Amino acid sequence: MPAFQPIGIIRSPFTRKDQTPIQPYRSQAAGRIELLPDYEGGLDGLEGFSHVILLYFFHHAEPGYDLIVTPYLDKEPHGLFATRYPRRPNAIGLSVVRLLRREGNTLHVEGIDVLDGTPLLDIKPYVPPFDAFPEATMGWLEGRT
Amino acid sequence: MPAFQPIGIIRSPFTRKDQTPIQPYRSQAAGRIELLPDYEGGLDGLEGFSHVILLYFFHHAEPGYDLIVTPYLDKEPHGLFATRYPRRPNAIGLSVVRLLRREGNTLHVEGIDVLDGTPLLDIKPYVPPFDAFPEATMGWLEGRT
Repeated sequence: MPAFQPIGIIRSPFTRKDQTPIQPYRSQAAGRIELLPDYEGGLDGLEGFSHVILLYFFHHAEPGYDLIVTPYLDKEPHGLFATRYPRRPNAIGLSVVRLLRREGNTLHVEGIDVLDGTPLLDIKPYVPPFDAFPEATMGWLEGRT
Repeated sequence: MPAFQPIGIIRSPFTRKDQTPIQPYRSQAAGRIELLPDYEGGLDGLEGFSHVILLYFFHHAEPGYDLIVTPYLDKEPHGLFATRYPRRPNAIGLSVVRLLRREGNTLHVEGIDVLDGTPLLDIKPYVPPFDAFPEATMGWLEGRT
């Protein structure tokens, strides 16, 4: 597997982990996705999508992981892969955010939930037939979001 | 950024790219997520979720990328980040699949859309308040899915 490299940086109002919302639906925070200038052409046509999926590196997560964790939203321990906890074997984070507008290589977004300076790995268009399952059940998170 | 390593492998009926569905909603195909045994404990509690998010490495995508691509579902060129095309700066794929059941370190899933043998990078629980935006608009993909 090749080494992954950041393609840009995520700008947010959150500079401390304890100020950062747990997930985007709790956040109305505005942020910016600053793509490295070389990639700007790859954004063409993204303006038609109201939401985008961000993949990023949890750069503030300490290295390593525990297979059983007690996440922020619960007091009970759960398997790591049943949580969105940042300390993971591959510390890749995923957030769906609302795309407000594009300005050159910058995307203005809303509902950001990551730390300022987070390295961006990928941007994908959010496509409801692929990605939206509003009736999905959510295990231990039921009633906790 | 650390080197990412597979945490398991995705088993599917698809052994050739031209047989592989474009996205999971087009697929009723059954598949298996075989986590490396060391990670099995991390699956505890995942059974309560009806859907999971898979992150994986597009291992059959040729290295490199083009910033403008003509994706499978269209005849017009689009910016790479407005598509789910596999050849990307970081060739990470994302699919939401239905979780049927767990058996030890194996997840039986439905709606798989990746090639057999795809290296798995992460499993995350699908959480509607974070991930489901059924009203999202989808740009050039409107009417094409």
